[in-house]
Amino acid sequence: MNYDDQALELHKQYKGKITTSLRDTSELDKDKLSAYYTPGVAAVSRAIADDESLLPVYTWTNNLVAVISDGSAVLGLGNIGPKGSMPVMEGKSLLFKHFAGIDSIPIILDVHTADEIVATVKAIAPSFGAINLEDIAAPLCFEIEERLKAELNIPVFHDDQHGTAVVVLAGLINAMKVVGKNLADSKIVIIGAGAAGTAITKLLHLYGVGSIIAVDSKGIVGSARDDLNDEKIKLLDYVDSSASGSLEDALNGADIFIGVSRPELLTPALIAHMSDKPVVFALANPMPEIMPDAAKEAGVAVIATGRSDFPNQVNNAIAFPGIFRGALDNGVTKITDQHKIAAAEVIASLVESPTADTIIPSVFDERLVPEIAKIIK
Amino acid sequence: MNYDDQALELHKQYKGKITTSLRDTSELDKDKLSAYYTPGVAAVSRAIADDESLLPVYTWTNNLVAVISDGSAVLGLGNIGPKGSMPVMEGKSLLFKHFAGIDSIPIILDVHTADEIVATVKAIAPSFGAINLEDIAAPLCFEIEERLKAELNIPVFHDDQHGTAVVVLAGLINAMKVVGKNLADSKIVIIGAGAAGTAITKLLHLYGVGSIIAVDSKGIVGSARDDLNDEKIKLLDYVDSSASGSLEDALNGADIFIGVSRPELLTPALIAHMSDKPVVFALANPMPEIMPDAAKEAGVAVIATGRSDFPNQVNNAIAFPGIFRGALDNGVTKITDQHKIAAAEVIASLVESPTADTIIPSVFDERLVPEIAKIIK
Repeated sequence: MNYDDQALELHKQYKGKITTSLRDTSELDKDKLSAYYTPGVAAVSRAIADDESLLPVYTWTNNLVAVISDGSAVLGLGNIGPKGSMPVMEGKSLLFKHFAGIDSIPIILDVHTADEIVATVKAIAPSFGAINLEDIAAPLCFEIEERLKAELNIPVFHDDQHGTAVVVLAGLINAMKVVGKNLADSKIVIIGAGAAGTAITKLLHLYGVGSIIAVDSKGIVGSARDDLNDEKIKLLDYVDSSASGSLEDALNGADIFIGVSRPELLTPALIAHMSDKPVVFALANPMPEIMPDAAKEAGVAVIATGRSDFPNQVNNAIAFPGIFRGALDNGVTKITDQHKIAAAEVIASLVESPTADTIIPSVFDERLVPEIAKIIK
Repeated sequence: MNYDDQALELHKQYKGKITTSLRDTSELDKDKLSAYYTPGVAAVSRAIADDESLLPVYTWTNNLVAVISDGSAVLGLGNIGPKGSMPVMEGKSLLFKHFAGIDSIPIILDVHTADEIVATVKAIAPSFGAINLEDIAAPLCFEIEERLKAELNIPVFHDDQHGTAVVVLAGLINAMKVVGKNLADSKIVIIGAGAAGTAITKLLHLYGVGSIIAVDSKGIVGSARDDLNDEKIKLLDYVDSSASGSLEDALNGADIFIGVSRPELLTPALIAHMSDKPVVFALANPMPEIMPDAAKEAGVAVIATGRSDFPNQVNNAIAFPGIFRGALDNGVTKITDQHKIAAAEVIASLVESPTADTIIPSVFDERLVPEIAKIIK
């Protein structure tokens, strides 16, 4: 189904997706105004100025996530700029509210260097309880997130990287049960070394897998390559850096293919190079590296995509609402690798009996947010 | 009445004052999610990327005002920093919603030079439909507002300056009717040459009054002074710059006293120097330059203060909700001096028969927002 017309119509009809309202919905009479604004509010301001840890006690920051983007890598649309990215960021704020009851506001940035983005986000950071970076292009996104995490004392989470990585790990944990293999012994090929691909690689490495081969548009990312940028050189620590060759070479005997690359990249001929019961996560959006039906015909045992119209949707909204809910409620200031692995294990555990068509819970599973939130502490 | 305890309690109970919610309150099923977020939202993003004027058609920016402060001049509390200022900014966002139905979010800044504040606000400006600068100290606030107005194509309005000036002018128009004098012939003394005092001086000068003498803590601001900062030197263009001497000298024969200075500065002995039927706007907060009862005993014909517990409250919330409502609804990108004068005249006109105790409409007068909004076009 094509949602374009419905999307344009709904956005126009409602003039956007989110709005603000007052927490106290009783009548706002003169006395209440004098407590919520001058003169009463001065006592609240003085209290916070004296003890800044009271900020989340008295202001909405306790439940507030900023969704921040410069519009440089929006969905599959690429660098469409901040204003073009606004509907996506406002949509993310809608997801925060809908799935986790979190107040969220989109902030789009008209600056595009790492220094400017870091300076801007640091300057406005006291306004928020946590920061969700979104749709910022690689490799800039890595530096920006690293610096902000180091310099701010509220959670900073680039969801394109880590949200995706968490759900992929959750899905793989269950896919391995379905095919009767061990992740710890698996040979994994990841194609696409952008934000998501890099984060998936790092998280799987940390979790412990047999081996990982990373592939980009030029072939296997290994130490033999002389054209790697700084981020890809860093990636060598997490992959089988001695590997070299083409995607076909990489896939020889591979148990798992993870694509965050481009439509229709994975052919049945390529799948034939993989080991038995191959597992394919074809996450290019909206058109995956291979369509689920074609994958099954080619012998794939378990196929996951980013699409809601097929089973096993790898959807960040499975992970980020619970992760932020937990961080805000439990006063967590850094979302760590251990948090991400624990979140993936919780997500995987919510599928009681994994099958080829059910390795990942539905985004509408109401256990997700509370169960994930519990372990972000 | 002391509102401190009630304020602390209410803020704690509700965990702040504002929250976000979804504009479309019907059930958010899978199809709607696919229209509000991926894949449908991509069509909306593409439309805006192709034609940025569609941003307010499809996103909440059409109704969104950011309340921005660095916390350097908060209420009467002074420079208490961004976090301390948050309850006031969130309170302002509450006023925007309550009085004008405007979505508003507080943004507090952890930077404090003009260059940094301008750079930060410019960087995040595409996120908003308009910007309300709040509680930024003079003289920095003048430069910051000037530069942002010049460089952004959305309304930028420093409410401490202009909101106050508009309501003061409205009140003076009616006060002159009560005492049977003409503003065009009046001798006015303004004490306090900060954000509000400067803006009042400029607006009254533009409106056309007899003469204005500005007074600061060192005496009359005139060309004889050799200790004036740049902003005060600029102020000389709007006042009787040949005047010199003390506050007492300034008040000789004055028709109107406007104080934005400090508690209890205006004594009966000083009032005795003014002309007959003196008008006093004692706007220091929360303790005015003279209490209304004492002013009346000393022969003051009309007294206005910033307090809600006395008649004639000069309250910015009388002006700014309608000004922003009009700017957003009518696509106004600059709020001009003509807008401010027109707003003051509208506000004054809503008091059909001004008396000494009724020169300014109540902030709860429901005609205010629609009537002001009409003329901001």
